[in-house]
Amino acid sequence: MTIIVLNFKTYRESTGLEALRLAEICEDVSKEYSVQIWVAPQVADIYAISHAVKIPVFAQHVDGVGYGGYTGHITAASLKAAGASGTLINHSERRLKLADIDASIAAARLAGLKTIVCTNNVATTRGAAALEPDYVAVEPPELIGSGIPVSKANPDVIRGSVAAVKDIAPAVGVLCGAGITHGEDLRSALELGSAGVLLASGIIKAKDPRAALVDLVAGAKK
Amino acid sequence: MTIIVLNFKTYRESTGLEALRLAEICEDVSKEYSVQIWVAPQVADIYAISHAVKIPVFAQHVDGVGYGGYTGHITAASLKAAGASGTLINHSERRLKLADIDASIAAARLAGLKTIVCTNNVATTRGAAALEPDYVAVEPPELIGSGIPVSKANPDVIRGSVAAVKDIAPAVGVLCGAGITHGEDLRSALELGSAGVLLASGIIKAKDPRAALVDLVAGAKK
Amino acid sequence: MTIIVLNFKTYRESTGLEALRLAEICEDVSKEYSVQIWVAPQVADIYAISHAVKIPVFAQHVDGVGYGGYTGHITAASLKAAGASGTLINHSERRLKLADIDASIAAARLAGLKTIVCTNNVATTRGAAALEPDYVAVEPPELIGSGIPVSKANPDVIRGSVAAVKDIAPAVGVLCGAGITHGEDLRSALELGSAGVLLASGIIKAKDPRAALVDLVAGAKK
Amino acid sequence: MTIIVLNFKTYRESTGLEALRLAEICEDVSKEYSVQIWVAPQVADIYAISHAVKIPVFAQHVDGVGYGGYTGHITAASLKAAGASGTLINHSERRLKLADIDASIAAARLAGLKTIVCTNNVATTRGAAALEPDYVAVEPPELIGSGIPVSKANPDVIRGSVAAVKDIAPAVGVLCGAGITHGEDLRSALELGSAGVLLASGIIKAKDPRAALVDLVAGAKK
Repeated sequence: MTIIVLNFKTYRESTGLEALRLAEICEDVSKEYSVQIWVAPQVADIYAISHAVKIPVFAQHVDGVGYGGYTGHITAASLKAAGASGTLINHSERRLKLADIDASIAAARLAGLKTIVCTNNVATTRGAAALEPDYVAVEPPELIGSGIPVSKANPDVIRGSVAAVKDIAPAVGVLCGAGITHGEDLRSALELGSAGVLLASGIIKAKDPRAALVDLVAGAKK
Repeated sequence: MTIIVLNFKTYRESTGLEALRLAEICEDVSKEYSVQIWVAPQVADIYAISHAVKIPVFAQHVDGVGYGGYTGHITAASLKAAGASGTLINHSERRLKLADIDASIAAARLAGLKTIVCTNNVATTRGAAALEPDYVAVEPPELIGSGIPVSKANPDVIRGSVAAVKDIAPAVGVLCGAGITHGEDLRSALELGSAGVLLASGIIKAKDPRAALVDLVAGAKK
Repeated sequence: MTIIVLNFKTYRESTGLEALRLAEICEDVSKEYSVQIWVAPQVADIYAISHAVKIPVFAQHVDGVGYGGYTGHITAASLKAAGASGTLINHSERRLKLADIDASIAAARLAGLKTIVCTNNVATTRGAAALEPDYVAVEPPELIGSGIPVSKANPDVIRGSVAAVKDIAPAVGVLCGAGITHGEDLRSALELGSAGVLLASGIIKAKDPRAALVDLVAGAKK
Repeated sequence: MTIIVLNFKTYRESTGLEALRLAEICEDVSKEYSVQIWVAPQVADIYAISHAVKIPVFAQHVDGVGYGGYTGHITAASLKAAGASGTLINHSERRLKLADIDASIAAARLAGLKTIVCTNNVATTRGAAALEPDYVAVEPPELIGSGIPVSKANPDVIRGSVAAVKDIAPAVGVLCGAGITHGEDLRSALELGSAGVLLASGIIKAKDPRAALVDLVAGAKK
């Protein structure tokens, strides 16, 4: 079943009460069109959202530390307690050291959180897949927020990532992202072998986010 | 009025439901003994705690970024929306670049959050005070979690910090921390010129945190 | 006496043998026009340059660590042994944590290196000056490499930095940079109270770096 | 042919003139015993050492940036110009982001430098091997500088790394390190399948580094 992950980033339109409203829209569309939509709001918004909607709520980042003296870090245990189901790791706007990606995956798994490790090209997809998270999500950074879909601008990075993961760690799912906005972008991404997409501004900054989401999910249906 | 800031760090005893319980104890003691106790839980716990207690809730960290494409960052707007009153910045377990401390103070102020910038010695207290946060909190890292109170082990770092701030930015309040546990530690800290203390394990890891807090606040009374 | 610091960055035109040639040009112009020109090449180029020219050679960065297990770090002792006279610290392209700026200044001083701490605005100039390096160099990042001189685009950041340093740590010298290329830029910078300038692309990427340098130093003469 | 990489770190005994002397000892032993010894001094020491000895000189770190405005970074081009043959990447004392390891390998390759990517466990060995450097060197951080050889304390991390690399990227060589000092440590490491060792304090802090090296290389001979 196609996975759509909506990264709320730190946009004004997806912070605090606006984040809650957006998550509710995602839940509505998810039900109505029978697609999986996972929302990834800011950490401070997770508690309110996870207590208001039933779709999976992901964090945008988790640190690879456990209980202890780690002031200012985001622990998997605190995310789980707030109601999160999973977390992004190593997004291009929050890149991590290799050893910390490994530690973050381990910490998330221990707390029962699903993991999506973001990568920027086929080589780092190979590197991330070797760490065996639940998913990798390849996103060429130069296309993020560009409105130019990765599935059109660089289909090879998706094909290459799908092939690399199949080779190295076939149990890992492959998502892709960057510039994804419309149903046809999603459809191309699926045809190239990905299990779903990670997207943000195309929906969040749309005049009518609900309509934009509906347009998108149509791509999963054809 | 003496300020006591309890940094929850990421201890098991101060995460999720335990964090909520601890915040309630702080509120009780705060009322009963008429002292200010500010709690600083993990970001994911802020929403639930700030909706359950009336004492000020601080974040342990804020990033110096605003609305936009900053996946995985902690924004002041999200903290404010979740109910926070302020934030620690640059704790020794989460040190920041100089320019980012400046940006974090500005972002916090814009969102209406109070700022406590942590420092590790008199020189960095001078540097942090020059950025004019609401408070600086000097904590020699080698004493953090040691059980040896800074007020006894290194009174000069408190005296020096108080003098430096008076010289450079007299409107900034001075707190101190590291190894603070008992009422006498707090009393010494106040006698050395600080406006209050920042503490963590001495209370959180105590067998009876309420009793430990009561012992501590006694120091503000004499 | 006016100080001109030429930051070699990592340009092709200022790496390896090209760096050596450029340093020799700087030495020639320095002698001929009786101005101080300090060169700041990459660390790997310091040894060859400091053994070929007599003008001061600065590093572009130093880590705040001493002897020990610090693989991959740049120590003040190694810079000194290679012939360096000083070092930039906290350049906007290599920003440091507040505590690390403090440690880098201390490590450099211990090894007998002069320190120039770069800052991005008046607030961070205040913060850096409070740490008492030999110099602060304020450079608004948005003007770096722009060709628009800070002395014209933002004279207040220079005036404000000069005033702040005078207030907080009068023994610290003030330099400025960003967009500085011509003699008139240097002259304005001096008139605004700075003791000299930090510059890079305006000279290094010039068709004729020697002519560009001569044009610049003319500004120190009027 | 067995590879011995001596990481000079930033010890007093391996900085500046002492670094030069140590490199000369390594060259002597290398010739006398017909083993490969690669030295990895601090960047500021590379020029003098590479012009004095004929054994390969490695850097301890390289940044994944090219020519341009990257003040304070260590470029592959500058290392090559100073005489380096290769570089360590991602040492546990200088860990890098996943995307930066990928960029550092690419930058090093472009400049003609060999690459050794350090890792901390089998999972990160898998991740690093997937990026296809020339070598990975697995070093459990808790054993670094301990004097307890990884080959004795944790042979499985070597066996597991050798197997993982064979599976994912068989052209990549496998080294190991941490606690390696004596000939028998080296011999065990080779028997476990590694192509050589990375070591530091066991030789550098020895009363007689030459004798310590001779003792070590004996392990490659039996």
